[in-house]
Amino acid sequence: MRVAIAGIGLIGGSLALSLKRNGFAAEVIGVDTNETHCQKALALGIVDSIQPLEAAVDMADIIILAIPVDASISVLPGILDQINDHQIVVDMGSTKKDICQAIHDHPKRARFVASHPIAGTENNGPEAAFATLFLDKVGIICDRELSDAKALGVIEKLYKSLFMRLTYMESAEHDRHIAYVSHLSHITSFTLGLTVLEVEKDEKNIFDMAGSGFASTARLAKSSPAMWAPIFDQNAKNLSKVLTAYIKNLEMFKHLIDTGDRDKVFELMEEANDIRRILNGIELNENNKIKI
Amino acid sequence: MRVAIAGIGLIGGSLALSLKRNGFAAEVIGVDTNETHCQKALALGIVDSIQPLEAAVDMADIIILAIPVDASISVLPGILDQINDHQIVVDMGSTKKDICQAIHDHPKRARFVASHPIAGTENNGPEAAFATLFLDKVGIICDRELSDAKALGVIEKLYKSLFMRLTYMESAEHDRHIAYVSHLSHITSFTLGLTVLEVEKDEKNIFDMAGSGFASTARLAKSSPAMWAPIFDQNAKNLSKVLTAYIKNLEMFKHLIDTGDRDKVFELMEEANDIRRILNGIELNENNKIKI
Repeated sequence: MRVAIAGIGLIGGSLALSLKRNGFAAEVIGVDTNETHCQKALALGIVDSIQPLEAAVDMADIIILAIPVDASISVLPGILDQINDHQIVVDMGSTKKDICQAIHDHPKRARFVASHPIAGTENNGPEAAFATLFLDKVGIICDRELSDAKALGVIEKLYKSLFMRLTYMESAEHDRHIAYVSHLSHITSFTLGLTVLEVEKDEKNIFDMAGSGFASTARLAKSSPAMWAPIFDQNAKNLSKVLTAYIKNLEMFKHLIDTGDRDKVFELMEEANDIRRILNGIELNENNKIKI
Repeated sequence: MRVAIAGIGLIGGSLALSLKRNGFAAEVIGVDTNETHCQKALALGIVDSIQPLEAAVDMADIIILAIPVDASISVLPGILDQINDHQIVVDMGSTKKDICQAIHDHPKRARFVASHPIAGTENNGPEAAFATLFLDKVGIICDRELSDAKALGVIEKLYKSLFMRLTYMESAEHDRHIAYVSHLSHITSFTLGLTVLEVEKDEKNIFDMAGSGFASTARLAKSSPAMWAPIFDQNAKNLSKVLTAYIKNLEMFKHLIDTGDRDKVFELMEEANDIRRILNGIELNENNKIKI
């Protein structure tokens, strides 16, 4: 299988490495508007060659979009215009409704599979890529009834070749849920970073006191603005609702602390402790992940 | 050296294990109001014996308080009344101003060292304890001029025996800073847990979509309410100020997302990315920590 990957960063680069390592891809063609990334991807052996988008699309059996979500929407219609009836396009974006709407009526809609692998780190660029990123992670496929059965089957095989666990949903449902369990975390983390950096101006050495707990909650504040600004933009409506709920809970916490209502603060924390049930599942997957 | 440790949970239990392992303590006497914890600590070999507080204080060269911060304040005056001029009391609490004020005029004030090791996990109880928790972490000592030079020297030796890096500050300054780099993170994490658990009631399976990013930001929501409610209570004034700043930044983020101001959202995230400078330092310490 010849695979073209547009965007050779953390996601695209990791896909390239893993699909070559497990033999799914005989050849990976890289596409990137960032010349430095192209050179690094070649030097690191992440891709076999670099091509302009149009040439890469001509050559590939599968075209993977691993670029910012706004860029995906802008190139996808042209790619669908260009491909034949055997080629497949799949995207890796963290928002799904807008991209599905953008090509809903395209005559080649069925050659496109809308997907979202739940995998990533706070780092970016080809140097952040690694071959085991996707192993045992969840892969979401949206609106599968709009994809051709054969095209869908190939992308399912691709995900399964990476030991991923497939799950299916509507694109609108995906965006509503992912706002809670991914986009919100990024905003709270960015805000934590901002707030503490502000105070650092007056209180030097404050970070000498920061430990692993702070590092854990602020880690996502290192994420790429180029990737995340378009995601927040496309999922603005859901995110606004989620932020309203979060701010309301935070104001409640603050009110209880301000008024010294320790019993109620205790109760809220006990409620929140129930997150243990969820997190232990996620961490179990992380710890048990296949080592290769 | 004979060490009594009140509170044989994550912190007290880890101290017991590490001070025995490196030979600093010849004997560790455990004190805990939780009978199950006492039995577990004995069974796990964390402590050599269990004693009531008063008996333990009579027997020990150093008395370590690793109990909730309100409990420390309530037992400390009595312990100071009881000890002789060679015994030393040290606490491990995450707030320092109130405890220092509470015994400011006690005739034995100089036998007390106020400290805070920047180390912990989201787990609690004796089973969460491990011998390497403190290695290469920061140990803060507050208001050192109020402690007797010899008592201070012994506690410095204790921390150094664990490869800890000592830093000194005023108790009020400690509480102001720790609100930003520890207490705030706990509140944002508890609130994240609460908010997402609320929506789970209507949207089952939402957590199938949660990945390692969510796990990282929500991890601290697993923390013990019994430990944290008194901390928030004692540091309420500082925490209120910090929460006000955080909520203001969060509202700003929300406003920019609501109004589709992608450029400004991008800029804010770029600013927040500067946290990388701090986090890389913390993670470096975590990764380079001495393995024993």
